[in-house]
Amino acid sequence: MSTTNPNGLITRFKFQSLLRQDSAGRRIILKGTISGQPALLLVERAAFDIDPAYLNSFPRLVTHVNNLGDNDIYRWYMANSLPDGTLDQPTPPDLKLNLIYPCTEAHVAKYSFQQSRAVVETPEIYTKFVRPYMQRCREEGRLNWVFNIIEGRTEQENVLFRSEEADLKDDFLLLPDLNWDRKTIGGLHLLALVERRDLWSVRDLTRGDVAWLRHLRATLVKTVEGLYEGVEGDMLKFYVHYQPTYYHFHIHIVHVDLDPSATQGVGKAISLDNVINQLDTMSGALTGMADVDLMYTLGEASELWTKIFLPLKEGKVPKSTG
Amino acid sequence: MSTTNPNGLITRFKFQSLLRQDSAGRRIILKGTISGQPALLLVERAAFDIDPAYLNSFPRLVTHVNNLGDNDIYRWYMANSLPDGTLDQPTPPDLKLNLIYPCTEAHVAKYSFQQSRAVVETPEIYTKFVRPYMQRCREEGRLNWVFNIIEGRTEQENVLFRSEEADLKDDFLLLPDLNWDRKTIGGLHLLALVERRDLWSVRDLTRGDVAWLRHLRATLVKTVEGLYEGVEGDMLKFYVHYQPTYYHFHIHIVHVDLDPSATQGVGKAISLDNVINQLDTMSGALTGMADVDLMYTLGEASELWTKIFLPLKEGKVPKSTG
Repeated sequence: MSTTNPNGLITRFKFQSLLRQDSAGRRIILKGTISGQPALLLVERAAFDIDPAYLNSFPRLVTHVNNLGDNDIYRWYMANSLPDGTLDQPTPPDLKLNLIYPCTEAHVAKYSFQQSRAVVETPEIYTKFVRPYMQRCREEGRLNWVFNIIEGRTEQENVLFRSEEADLKDDFLLLPDLNWDRKTIGGLHLLALVERRDLWSVRDLTRGDVAWLRHLRATLVKTVEGLYEGVEGDMLKFYVHYQPTYYHFHIHIVHVDLDPSATQGVGKAISLDNVINQLDTMSGALTGMADVDLMYTLGEASELWTKIFLPLKEGKVPKSTG
Repeated sequence: MSTTNPNGLITRFKFQSLLRQDSAGRRIILKGTISGQPALLLVERAAFDIDPAYLNSFPRLVTHVNNLGDNDIYRWYMANSLPDGTLDQPTPPDLKLNLIYPCTEAHVAKYSFQQSRAVVETPEIYTKFVRPYMQRCREEGRLNWVFNIIEGRTEQENVLFRSEEADLKDDFLLLPDLNWDRKTIGGLHLLALVERRDLWSVRDLTRGDVAWLRHLRATLVKTVEGLYEGVEGDMLKFYVHYQPTYYHFHIHIVHVDLDPSATQGVGKAISLDNVINQLDTMSGALTGMADVDLMYTLGEASELWTKIFLPLKEGKVPKSTG
């Protein structure tokens, strides 16, 4: 019987409908029939073969290379991993390519594999070593772009919303995360930057900020519901990064349908609700998030690892990072 | 000049080395040269085209279908999305396929897109509605497989480690997560099931459990370091799910190199260090995790949504779930 030949089943699959697409579009689930009986076909892009012989010939095998744009040394493309034969219709591209040419050693370092380490930042390590490091980052002008946006000097085309709250302390801007295409609602990813400048990170939040945080969260829900049709408050998740990329307090807002990736990883993201809640249930003897251990992951090439956590692991005293 | 033709650059790329492979193997970063100058080529599997015309012809286009195994109505394969031409070497498969045939309505429901909702489970909702639901799940025998493994009756081939601690309360089993191939160290994903049966979920952890949790975490680090060469304690992350899939307390242990996916999503995963820490800094007036709000996401088809949180959203009183 033909059903006993598992390979033949695939080509006999008759497509009816797409049930869903996920994993950043790289998985599709098709509903259909085989010999009149219902069947599901789950199709996923496979991992690449990393056999050097294949990688060697790879650039020659690529076909239908279609340049989508370029900026200086950066170029991006869609392409097919194989020549298509004599088919009735062109096959959709199955590859995204990014070319950096000519590249520098800094590019190579950035894209090379880097071992990560999970570290525990105690209140003492924070106060003695990490906070001075944060201060230096702020003083070096790494936050100028943030202040320029807040003050309306640059990048206004990226400001999706600027609040006008009764209390200046409650004001914020909404920016799109770089990975959001600004239109797919299920992939919505916003950054809420507070306008006040006294909060560097989640570490600065105290028990006294619970009411402020709850008000901010509620305002953000209302604002995003108003900006994006079809988005309801319970379709949004709020989190902060620790360590963040820059030391000006900001909150990530994502749609629940967004496929969780590194931005939501354990050891990087902390649920905002969790933070509010921890502050709210904290012993009165403590001030706030500066008084707790925080676990997070660091790349071995990061300054926080090389200058603070690696020396500590080796039993040495980190040099001043301020 | 040929460098001004961006498409020609790709085929002239001369491969030197693989810098890294990530995104579950679906991105590779190649270092090489073009006309003797250094270049980086980032290659990613693209999202699928979901044009119905393409989906219709898709099963016919698939070639080199290679059946890897089957179990009842489930079959899995590797395949190529296109016929290869007359190449010197066979092209590695670029697709993973799973076929469920014949399938039922339950399969269709399981794999269809389901809207998620972010809910806040207050201590009151937990006590009145969610805990009775957990109890019913336990009484329905949904945990028999867990007890069978703990008691050594079934699935012993899946037990990677069984502890023999001085205090029975400290004993645990290590199982592989279903998504781990059991050999790639950078993708390591284990589940630690405690042998004690009084902890249903993170909700049962109290301020008095901090020392027990710290001891358990330390023992798990030592055990995993001993089982897998090259794994150091600071390459591991620990988290719990809330809601979990089953109501017997277990801890997820993953390698820091594992690409974060839904299992680490905000609204699903809570860092174990965060839990220990929250218990440790909690006001003495509170007992433990049963006294805090917990935010998490639920599919609209889940019982917790249809029976508890949807009625609450509509201002109704949920019927007894016990």
